[in-house]
Amino acid sequence: MTKNIYKGRIVNLNLETVTLPNGATVELEVIHHPGAAAAVPLKDARTVILIRQYRHAVGGYIYEIPAGKLHSGEDPRECALRELEEEIGYKAGVLELVSSAYTTPGFTDEVIHIYKATQLQRGKQNLGHDEVLAIAEFPLERTIAMIREGIIKDAKTIVGLQCVYLQLLGENIGEE
Amino acid sequence: MTKNIYKGRIVNLNLETVTLPNGATVELEVIHHPGAAAAVPLKDARTVILIRQYRHAVGGYIYEIPAGKLHSGEDPRECALRELEEEIGYKAGVLELVSSAYTTPGFTDEVIHIYKATQLQRGKQNLGHDEVLAIAEFPLERTIAMIREGIIKDAKTIVGLQCVYLQLLGENIGEE
Repeated sequence: MTKNIYKGRIVNLNLETVTLPNGATVELEVIHHPGAAAAVPLKDARTVILIRQYRHAVGGYIYEIPAGKLHSGEDPRECALRELEEEIGYKAGVLELVSSAYTTPGFTDEVIHIYKATQLQRGKQNLGHDEVLAIAEFPLERTIAMIREGIIKDAKTIVGLQCVYLQLLGENIGEE
Repeated sequence: MTKNIYKGRIVNLNLETVTLPNGATVELEVIHHPGAAAAVPLKDARTVILIRQYRHAVGGYIYEIPAGKLHSGEDPRECALRELEEEIGYKAGVLELVSSAYTTPGFTDEVIHIYKATQLQRGKQNLGHDEVLAIAEFPLERTIAMIREGIIKDAKTIVGLQCVYLQLLGENIGEE
């Protein structure tokens, strides 16, 4: 049994009565989300472009990779390309999926498709009136240290940067 | 201005009217969450214990590290230790924070504190009636491949495993 509590712009909250595989019947709060896409923009193999974005929910500015939620029926790759150009003003020639991750599966079905974006070319930044952000470039290796130091705290951003870095390490080991 | 839409067991949904740093006034859906803690349980330096847990929100079983939400006023370390013993039946001698991550800052303030757990000793598993899970051990290196292959898809689990693996790589480079 599903009872809709609220249907908003991003969040669609249900109370769902479910029978679990162990036979227990429980009532769960579930946020249905359209899904999202994000991209780690690499200017070159070892330089990444991050945004520093104001996020009301967490009370301030945080480092993130460009990301946004999927429009209805939208291919996640299209979404990632769109957000990349809108937020940092670059078009990407190549997108490679590094992870499709559940953000917080205890209460939402949100999946974020995270890509590595390369062959960047200048496009046109186009921020929404609700997007407040600045752009910053870092050596990829420095961002890995920033995660360790607690400076980068956004989960999708950590996943994307570490996946890209581990891939690079693997390629370098393979070349030896 | 804040309007509470729903206050449930996990999810507390508000509609908040906010003035952003660029002067724009917007109405945002915000899920307030008590926060959570998780731990990457290492049986030895290269062997990790994962759970395969049924998650209604995402429609099936997924690999995760043990985790749970904070009780009111609870220290995240206590929460991580509690969830570790309840979910996999091990007590940890040492906890080391690897990241405090925002799960999905576009619509929630949820932070999950992710620890590396070592010096494991047998305790007593104690699952809630709403927890359906099995335990599985993997070489740490194999879990990194499972992320790459899309078999491990839970964001906190990816962050925890990759942080622990990169730390191990760093130590090995340091030793050379």
